[in-house]
Amino acid sequence: AVHGARKMEGYGRFLALLVSALLVGFVSVVFSLVWVLHYRDGLSWDGSTREFNWHPVLIVTGFVFIQGIAIIVYRLPWTWKCSKLLMKCIHAGLNTIAMILAIVSVVAAFDYHNASNIPNMYSLHSWIGLIAVILYSLQLFLGFAVFLLPFAPVPLRAALMPIHVYSGLTIFATVIATALMGITEKLLFSLQNPSYSASPPEATFVNCLGLLLVIFGALILWMASRPHWKRPPEENAKVLGPIGETPEGTEAESTMTDGSNADKSDLRINSEAARKQNLKLDEAGQRSTM
Amino acid sequence: AVHGARKMEGYGRFLALLVSALLVGFVSVVFSLVWVLHYRDGLSWDGSTREFNWHPVLIVTGFVFIQGIAIIVYRLPWTWKCSKLLMKCIHAGLNTIAMILAIVSVVAAFDYHNASNIPNMYSLHSWIGLIAVILYSLQLFLGFAVFLLPFAPVPLRAALMPIHVYSGLTIFATVIATALMGITEKLLFSLQNPSYSASPPEATFVNCLGLLLVIFGALILWMASRPHWKRPPEENAKVLGPIGETPEGTEAESTMTDGSNADKSDLRINSEAARKQNLKLDEAGQRSTM
Repeated sequence: AVHGARKMEGYGRFLALLVSALLVGFVSVVFSLVWVLHYRDGLSWDGSTREFNWHPVLIVTGFVFIQGIAIIVYRLPWTWKCSKLLMKCIHAGLNTIAMILAIVSVVAAFDYHNASNIPNMYSLHSWIGLIAVILYSLQLFLGFAVFLLPFAPVPLRAALMPIHVYSGLTIFATVIATALMGITEKLLFSLQNPSYSASPPEATFVNCLGLLLVIFGALILWMASRPHWKRPPEENAKVLGPIGETPEGTEAESTMTDGSNADKSDLRINSEAARKQNLKLDEAGQRSTM
Repeated sequence: AVHGARKMEGYGRFLALLVSALLVGFVSVVFSLVWVLHYRDGLSWDGSTREFNWHPVLIVTGFVFIQGIAIIVYRLPWTWKCSKLLMKCIHAGLNTIAMILAIVSVVAAFDYHNASNIPNMYSLHSWIGLIAVILYSLQLFLGFAVFLLPFAPVPLRAALMPIHVYSGLTIFATVIATALMGITEKLLFSLQNPSYSASPPEATFVNCLGLLLVIFGALILWMASRPHWKRPPEENAKVLGPIGETPEGTEAESTMTDGSNADKSDLRINSEAARKQNLKLDEAGQRSTM
């Protein structure tokens, strides 16, 4: 086990959950591919239902699986020795990939609708889905501006972090809810003779995809909301490092709590017990999981 | 303002969010009633679609609105002077009402299906919905046995509390996702000439109901996950009270953290600063919001 991993409380359980989440996420992507390639008429970009088929595949791959990984990337104990800045870049990068795939998938749905004279934006699925894409993009933009760029003052970062975490998890849950609505719509539309209600194999198979998405979401939310699985705050050594190594504020917000900093530094001694104590104090601040 | 309310950090914001949640929840219930009474053919218990119509009304009223209130009932600062036991009874009572309404609403759907020879349990909505009802009942039963009855030892309560909180919030989110699938199904089934895709007034109206449910869920999740809006741990005075007033374990788990009790009691002094400190330490334990 690596240095970071050894420090993690309940490392075995974390690993089991991570492997489960990766497996469930991967199987979901495979299921979405089997759905469109085996049960439906495949993939292409020609305005037909084959273009529409990119919609579920890209949503499951990007907006669910990659977004889920982006959410828990700070929790991987092997990354705790990497700089916070690097991890932020990975978090932002994964979310950017997810956003691009989500946008392409929405374009595929619109393109297909337009080519087939199907109205756009009439369903609850489309309303909530579009809102989710817009809020996700806004969240990514704000996150980049406030937490990745070095300009935002530390109190602003600290004030916005709980909102960033809450919005991220809420948007993620909303995306999964929207995917479930999309599955419901698509099965009702495309299954005729036998219909959805006759439970043909495709219906059962795609229902299982829906279940997998809920399980994936539940696993990610559990991992993301365990306080003791958080990336530990940067150590004093780093903050007090050579002048050339500017702390540049990027790590600061992760060790800041709402106005209790003074008490905290009094308590901070260089021992494992003190580190744990510190972690607990941090809960109250923006490192609080929700 | 009452004693408890004055002690709450960000009381004004809490009040604004609470009023918003109550309003959005209440308007959702009204919308579900307008849907079935104005746009559909009303309510009765005769195996017709009028019996089915109880399904959305009872789900929105019980499984969404009342469950949402049950989740945040400990946060209401006016209740902080009430005993923890009373609050647990209210929490369990509201959840029991929600469960009964959810079960009756499922019976209405099955009854209607059976009377009309429509298959049961074929849709993703029905799969996830039934799982949610079962898990919700299990959660209520376990919560009652572990946290309300006086038999469970304190370490067990402490170990199960984070799971109870996580399960509760995840089931709540799943219920809302299931309601959105249900709305999608029902609009696709019942709107013919004009169809759902032609956006008749009913479609737009019920889409708005779906949006309201998402907003209600987001408000409840925000209020339930702010650490500084938690009910403060019981004060020493109470624990050290007369012998006749048994602490009976019901309050214990709310002031217990994972093995750091010793450190905590050392820190506990009878001052507001100490109370805040305490609150922060508690984050790490089962009072942690997720």
